[in-house]
Amino acid sequence: MAKKVVTMGEIMLRLSTPGYQRFTQAESFDVVYGGGEANVAVSLANYGFDAHFVSKLPENPIGQSAINHLRRFGVNTDYIAKGGERVGIYYLETGASMRPSKVVYDRANSSIAEASSKDFDFDAIFKDAAWFHFSGITPALSETAAVLTEEALKAAKRNNVTVSVDLNYRKKLWTPERAKEVMSNLMQYVDVCIGNEEDAEKVLGFKPGETDVTKGELQLEGYKDIFKQMKEQFGFKYVVTTLRESYSASDNGWSALIYNGEEFYHSKKYDVRIVDRVGGGDSFAGGLIYGLLAKDDFKQALEFAVGASALKHTINGDFNLVTVDEVETLIQGDASGRVQR
Amino acid sequence: MAKKVVTMGEIMLRLSTPGYQRFTQAESFDVVYGGGEANVAVSLANYGFDAHFVSKLPENPIGQSAINHLRRFGVNTDYIAKGGERVGIYYLETGASMRPSKVVYDRANSSIAEASSKDFDFDAIFKDAAWFHFSGITPALSETAAVLTEEALKAAKRNNVTVSVDLNYRKKLWTPERAKEVMSNLMQYVDVCIGNEEDAEKVLGFKPGETDVTKGELQLEGYKDIFKQMKEQFGFKYVVTTLRESYSASDNGWSALIYNGEEFYHSKKYDVRIVDRVGGGDSFAGGLIYGLLAKDDFKQALEFAVGASALKHTINGDFNLVTVDEVETLIQGDASGRVQR
Amino acid sequence: MAKKVVTMGEIMLRLSTPGYQRFTQAESFDVVYGGGEANVAVSLANYGFDAHFVSKLPENPIGQSAINHLRRFGVNTDYIAKGGERVGIYYLETGASMRPSKVVYDRANSSIAEASSKDFDFDAIFKDAAWFHFSGITPALSETAAVLTEEALKAAKRNNVTVSVDLNYRKKLWTPERAKEVMSNLMQYVDVCIGNEEDAEKVLGFKPGETDVTKGELQLEGYKDIFKQMKEQFGFKYVVTTLRESYSASDNGWSALIYNGEEFYHSKKYDVRIVDRVGGGDSFAGGLIYGLLAKDDFKQALEFAVGASALKHTINGDFNLVTVDEVETLIQGDASGRVQR
Amino acid sequence: MAKKVVTMGEIMLRLSTPGYQRFTQAESFDVVYGGGEANVAVSLANYGFDAHFVSKLPENPIGQSAINHLRRFGVNTDYIAKGGERVGIYYLETGASMRPSKVVYDRANSSIAEASSKDFDFDAIFKDAAWFHFSGITPALSETAAVLTEEALKAAKRNNVTVSVDLNYRKKLWTPERAKEVMSNLMQYVDVCIGNEEDAEKVLGFKPGETDVTKGELQLEGYKDIFKQMKEQFGFKYVVTTLRESYSASDNGWSALIYNGEEFYHSKKYDVRIVDRVGGGDSFAGGLIYGLLAKDDFKQALEFAVGASALKHTINGDFNLVTVDEVETLIQGDASGRVQR
Amino acid sequence: MAKKVVTMGEIMLRLSTPGYQRFTQAESFDVVYGGGEANVAVSLANYGFDAHFVSKLPENPIGQSAINHLRRFGVNTDYIAKGGERVGIYYLETGASMRPSKVVYDRANSSIAEASSKDFDFDAIFKDAAWFHFSGITPALSETAAVLTEEALKAAKRNNVTVSVDLNYRKKLWTPERAKEVMSNLMQYVDVCIGNEEDAEKVLGFKPGETDVTKGELQLEGYKDIFKQMKEQFGFKYVVTTLRESYSASDNGWSALIYNGEEFYHSKKYDVRIVDRVGGGDSFAGGLIYGLLAKDDFKQALEFAVGASALKHTINGDFNLVTVDEVETLIQGDASGRVQR
Amino acid sequence: MAKKVVTMGEIMLRLSTPGYQRFTQAESFDVVYGGGEANVAVSLANYGFDAHFVSKLPENPIGQSAINHLRRFGVNTDYIAKGGERVGIYYLETGASMRPSKVVYDRANSSIAEASSKDFDFDAIFKDAAWFHFSGITPALSETAAVLTEEALKAAKRNNVTVSVDLNYRKKLWTPERAKEVMSNLMQYVDVCIGNEEDAEKVLGFKPGETDVTKGELQLEGYKDIFKQMKEQFGFKYVVTTLRESYSASDNGWSALIYNGEEFYHSKKYDVRIVDRVGGGDSFAGGLIYGLLAKDDFKQALEFAVGASALKHTINGDFNLVTVDEVETLIQGDASGRVQR
Repeated sequence: MAKKVVTMGEIMLRLSTPGYQRFTQAESFDVVYGGGEANVAVSLANYGFDAHFVSKLPENPIGQSAINHLRRFGVNTDYIAKGGERVGIYYLETGASMRPSKVVYDRANSSIAEASSKDFDFDAIFKDAAWFHFSGITPALSETAAVLTEEALKAAKRNNVTVSVDLNYRKKLWTPERAKEVMSNLMQYVDVCIGNEEDAEKVLGFKPGETDVTKGELQLEGYKDIFKQMKEQFGFKYVVTTLRESYSASDNGWSALIYNGEEFYHSKKYDVRIVDRVGGGDSFAGGLIYGLLAKDDFKQALEFAVGASALKHTINGDFNLVTVDEVETLIQGDASGRVQR
Repeated sequence: MAKKVVTMGEIMLRLSTPGYQRFTQAESFDVVYGGGEANVAVSLANYGFDAHFVSKLPENPIGQSAINHLRRFGVNTDYIAKGGERVGIYYLETGASMRPSKVVYDRANSSIAEASSKDFDFDAIFKDAAWFHFSGITPALSETAAVLTEEALKAAKRNNVTVSVDLNYRKKLWTPERAKEVMSNLMQYVDVCIGNEEDAEKVLGFKPGETDVTKGELQLEGYKDIFKQMKEQFGFKYVVTTLRESYSASDNGWSALIYNGEEFYHSKKYDVRIVDRVGGGDSFAGGLIYGLLAKDDFKQALEFAVGASALKHTINGDFNLVTVDEVETLIQGDASGRVQR
Repeated sequence: MAKKVVTMGEIMLRLSTPGYQRFTQAESFDVVYGGGEANVAVSLANYGFDAHFVSKLPENPIGQSAINHLRRFGVNTDYIAKGGERVGIYYLETGASMRPSKVVYDRANSSIAEASSKDFDFDAIFKDAAWFHFSGITPALSETAAVLTEEALKAAKRNNVTVSVDLNYRKKLWTPERAKEVMSNLMQYVDVCIGNEEDAEKVLGFKPGETDVTKGELQLEGYKDIFKQMKEQFGFKYVVTTLRESYSASDNGWSALIYNGEEFYHSKKYDVRIVDRVGGGDSFAGGLIYGLLAKDDFKQALEFAVGASALKHTINGDFNLVTVDEVETLIQGDASGRVQR
Repeated sequence: MAKKVVTMGEIMLRLSTPGYQRFTQAESFDVVYGGGEANVAVSLANYGFDAHFVSKLPENPIGQSAINHLRRFGVNTDYIAKGGERVGIYYLETGASMRPSKVVYDRANSSIAEASSKDFDFDAIFKDAAWFHFSGITPALSETAAVLTEEALKAAKRNNVTVSVDLNYRKKLWTPERAKEVMSNLMQYVDVCIGNEEDAEKVLGFKPGETDVTKGELQLEGYKDIFKQMKEQFGFKYVVTTLRESYSASDNGWSALIYNGEEFYHSKKYDVRIVDRVGGGDSFAGGLIYGLLAKDDFKQALEFAVGASALKHTINGDFNLVTVDEVETLIQGDASGRVQR
Repeated sequence: MAKKVVTMGEIMLRLSTPGYQRFTQAESFDVVYGGGEANVAVSLANYGFDAHFVSKLPENPIGQSAINHLRRFGVNTDYIAKGGERVGIYYLETGASMRPSKVVYDRANSSIAEASSKDFDFDAIFKDAAWFHFSGITPALSETAAVLTEEALKAAKRNNVTVSVDLNYRKKLWTPERAKEVMSNLMQYVDVCIGNEEDAEKVLGFKPGETDVTKGELQLEGYKDIFKQMKEQFGFKYVVTTLRESYSASDNGWSALIYNGEEFYHSKKYDVRIVDRVGGGDSFAGGLIYGLLAKDDFKQALEFAVGASALKHTINGDFNLVTVDEVETLIQGDASGRVQR
Repeated sequence: MAKKVVTMGEIMLRLSTPGYQRFTQAESFDVVYGGGEANVAVSLANYGFDAHFVSKLPENPIGQSAINHLRRFGVNTDYIAKGGERVGIYYLETGASMRPSKVVYDRANSSIAEASSKDFDFDAIFKDAAWFHFSGITPALSETAAVLTEEALKAAKRNNVTVSVDLNYRKKLWTPERAKEVMSNLMQYVDVCIGNEEDAEKVLGFKPGETDVTKGELQLEGYKDIFKQMKEQFGFKYVVTTLRESYSASDNGWSALIYNGEEFYHSKKYDVRIVDRVGGGDSFAGGLIYGLLAKDDFKQALEFAVGASALKHTINGDFNLVTVDEVETLIQGDASGRVQR
């Protein structure tokens, strides 16, 4: 029987311009629904888990459409509470070459930002669950959301559920000070911590090295030092980061680094021609959870996560619609892209 | 030189499902921008006036897109203030036959709802203006918006500008009690009042007759009584209403009634096959303002308004994209729809 | 807790031309998935039941897409077997005015047509189920499908499940002789029988009256005689038919007739402007099952079914995407199609 | 072996706004290619004739696309000359309800308007041909086109080809005076003359009765008088007109009248819900030519022509994409629009 | 007068997801019709030949659409037989970067797979023909198709027609054993043999070298050995292969190798940014046939074929829509892609 | 207050095939309006200037649509004269990889080509203007257009307006001889001259070096010699050229060279992945005018121009829809294309 895995957070309406249109050119928006933890849930459903997404959505057809979008891709939506005022929105303009993609958020006052623990029966939710994943976005949504997140984490731990976090700092949602205050406390419940240098600094206060990500350079050494500090301070089982080399909006290098307290492992690197990079980090988290649950070796888990998320960059929408077989074929070496008949 | 006319209110992002899709089927939304007074401004620009729309929009690409949409159709946007958090949204699902169109609003906390009179130089705005139009939606947006509306009205009167209102009761925005409180006060500045029975009752407290609009019946007599009361209490120069007979979501009857204190005049009635009925009432207001400014006879003004708004029902989007010539051809009797080569 | 209801049959890929294009004009096909019993399952899921669809689909992305389409609209797909060669297809060209819609079937050798009872655990499927629905299409798919259908029916009866059938004669699938042979036997398991005159004649051998459906005439009297015979011979609890008056491909009259052995009841009639009439009969069956399960009065059940299926004609695709509330609003009298804000 | 039929004229690029968009809303144009005689050729190819279209098109990809569009629908394009400067264009905005469709022509200086008889070997073209059709548009294109048309007609007569004309007056192309001068001369070659009252007056100088077509009234009696005069003066074998009752841009009545010198025959009338009425008259001409070539009875020929062209109104684009079988089904009485499975 | 060339095989309906959508995301499919030999016929028609495609298609609108698609692009369809049950289908999902394109076939029981020589008059078909081309797909469709292919080949040879084959092994259609049995026999009729290493091994039993195509490596030496064996055993005039270096689904290297029994010639190599690579091999065959018929030098023929098929990778759909001039411009050295005004 | 800048020329309807379709595949055209000087005006409006476009357009809905398109993006259209026959057209097929983009012009007899100085009040137009820009296309349109251009230039100089020209030789519009005759005379009014080698040779008669642009090579030295000659002969303040290295239709190198009479400055070079390169040169001119008006340093002006026009290559349509901030971010070094949230 499929393992039960749980993620909790916001699912937003994503309104993106078709093709490479700028916002001011758009006469229509492509519609999908997505959000950090929802995206992770879809990855996990695709890999065969009994994936549950916990959130709150208004009782209107837009909220229903978000639910339907999740159901379509196999996520169990039974734990989604109904109520509140609105579905959060983000507008997306897809960049190309030296023109960056642009995101405009309109997510204040969404149903999940105003939800409380009365909306959920967390012990039922975490009963028999193998994994719980959340991101730093969820507690940043509002003060009640921060409280809600901690209640979920307590229940998860009560039910012996492994917990992962994607730090995911969002400067539009909170200040580094507030982030540190909230997130440092939540780290006590976390087993696996995913976050890049910016996250580590803004969310947890670890000083990054001199990496200048806009220059597409990577300084693995800088990460090692930070990872050791993070492991030491919070006792994570694994500290993990993706390593994006942004050559342009069209082409990126993509790899990842994991630290298990003893050893650093840097994955294979992929050069990806980008179709849609939004959700890339979430697909990495989804792949990593699969890998750590299904594979014996944390290095193989990382390779799965990196291959899965490399593939995500070739898929439209927030969700990573790939199967375990497709990821395995890639990581076992066939990146030739030959037609499969 | 073209007469200067001014409208003030909210312009929203309208997200509508293509074809006759239901919300839960939509993979894309058609994008236009519209709102009661913005729609009126576009009508007036089309008829050759120097039409100004006063509002506030955030400094982001969505706000800019709303401005561009207005500019495209000839509206002067120089008086639009920049700032605030968001562009209000309404979702639209177009009905057919016995399935009604459905609107879901997500307009709370929009920039204009949070604007104050500091954002506008009303004396500059109304200098040399011939007309000011607003609707009952604008003061309903927020308490500050109600204050803002009165300040605009005072300035308009200070500058000897004729004022029209479309009562337009919106139950999602305020209660009848609050509506009455605010709107009764604002009526002192109004010369021309447009509103149907529901508006008259909910906004101004006049008791309607027994018309049951869902049955598609019309009781002209009931209106006459109410119109007389309205004229008496508020001293309007004209009291006007559209008369919609909703046979179905696909076919409507459409006419209007005007009262100048002495005489009632019921326009010609059109049977319209509907392409998009949203903005029908606004196109009527726009046509009426044109008629009263450009024609000698209030009856001819009404016929223009009804013809213009009948045509609106055949046009996608909130805006009524017709010329004076097209309306005149229709009201002079050619409703045959023969191809114009 | 939601009642469990089960339907079984084929779900096909529907490829329809956009707009009113003819097949020879099409450069793209709109894609949905549908089929008689699948459509009924979606209706039942929309009305809040725990609706299960039983079928077989190949293990390829087209089969997966059919499953996802059902999941999106709330149908439980856990009982769908995987295997076989292909998803059946039907091509649809939407007519208008005097040009009829055209369906081209390409459904031979689909997975469900080649499925056997080994693919399903019928006792698990019907455990705690309240209703089972199938149509005359399923046993017509192949000889093995006819055997499979009877095994399902036996299991349903073993588990005390109420059974309904929609006779749905398809001349491309079998001859009247073969239909009679197979279907007459299956009627012993049926409680509620839905079928029009053509079905009654071709499938069960009852001689119709002189109704000429292409002329848009209806002869209720002819039906009464047949219904009595059907009731007598097979002991149905209810015999039901929809009554379509096909004025043109764009406009139809739509009502229904039910007989409970004592009384004939002819529903309200709706004149529908058609958006998509495919699945109209299935949406009627779905509405009827809801009505008979949720309402005390078989007449009210019929009114619900007719209102629901009238609404279906305004919705694109095979599925009837309406809620109980929307149907109730219509059958309680508001067919005005006024915008719902 | 299929009969050879020939038409000659202009084929234009048609740029139409999608849906019911106005020109000023369009961000894309739908593309087809069409023109009076090209449309007739497609009808004739659909009915199984060896249909040839004679024209001239520039040697560029737009000219090639026009050829491909004809080939796709079975027209033989071997007689199309290559050269000249441009493909003529017409812009089309599709109306609805009381808003008329609008055509903007941009056809001056097209290749066919500047073609001469050196571009064509008319005796080869008309060898073994059964019919030649042209319209009043072709000689109106330019002075050289008028000369070219007469040369074609002389060659047709030399080869014993039956000739039909659709008078088709276009006020943007020439004056009534010039039309009369050119067309009166060409009538000597014509066997079958199609034209409505406006054509008869503007092109041939026959005084119409008091029919006011914008009022949707029809005065059959007025036609009879004109038809007799036309027959008398030019010796036509048949004089024919379509009778359009333009209720609105969405709904028309459609029938036709034929006179064989002895008898007037008024066809069955169809009420059509319009998808695209452009090319309606051409589809009538195509149907009439088929009818007169394939049927014994001129009344049956007329019924075929009317049925065929009624169906055209339900089909997008200039071309009438229907088969003989589809027309026969309709004229034999099935206008119910029931789905054909 | 244009040379007559003939190809024979299956033309399928191709249903491809728009953009880079995965199958499970698709709400519509783009529609073209294509298949190995049909694609070759279109290339040959584009190059000015009198190109005939021989096949069988059902008498329904889908079959007609396939014919129309061929006619549009200049292929003569007079030899296509009518009858049988269905048009074969292939579903296509376009890959990007490391995600491969995916093809799902649904082609069993198509009309051509069930055709027999009674459907064709091969001596008429090959009368005055200069070339006949077929692929290894056609005899693989069914046992009757294998018989049919040999009958066509015998007739071609009877009529002194040059014959080319593209070996094109399809593992979904037959085993290497069956392929060898059938194809080895057919090789006696072949003058020009096109096939890569996999084809040579699976279809003809020649042992390939150690080339691992998934690694994007090329081993020209390995080919030379095989080519010599092929030439020796079957007496081909030319043995030819394309050489694809699959860097990713987005970028490929593309060249070709030819052997005339004396000399090996390796063409120029192109690095192509891929729009649609399906039909790349067919466009090579089409270019090669053109080259061998129109050019004196087999090396120039090969360069034409490689240039033509490099261009194909930039064109949507199965067909290579380029002219001789466009190919010549490329192979004479202008690959700069500068705008042509 | 924003500086007033003026450009004058033709705005055409651009009809482009969607995606990478070839013309013969297109069933629709994407619609924008553009032209050299109109594109420059839009750039200048985006950068905050009071940008005016001077032209003439017919009084029909296509002309109005061109005006609306300009207004939408902030250009003042008050100086556009109304009249004449048609809007010029250009058809665009977007290339990829080694397949070049293709432009087919159909611009003869457009309204602006037939305009005269009576249509414009040039002294009003240039009153208080800071800059006037035109291209070599405008005087090439017709003899009257050449006269009109000189009249505009005289008025500009009379009003002390700085003048720039983009030489832009178009071989379809005139011969090098005629170009030299007209343009050499106009150079007396010009302060800033933009043009590449081909322009310098064809329009002004300066002999280029041995650069072969189709080979993607650049010979800066050759330019230096020509620039000196140009400066000497015409007294330009600046001579400027863009330097395009056309690797393929998908990827270009992009930089520029400026000469102020003393110093040559070669900008940074960008490698651009192309979305739409039409209007690239115009966006460079727009950026250069901004730079020279807003920056102290001509080198910084050039960097702005190159950065702006590099970004243009990533934007659909003729217009460069970027802000000053976006260009500054790029030229200050962030070409990483990271998502902006």
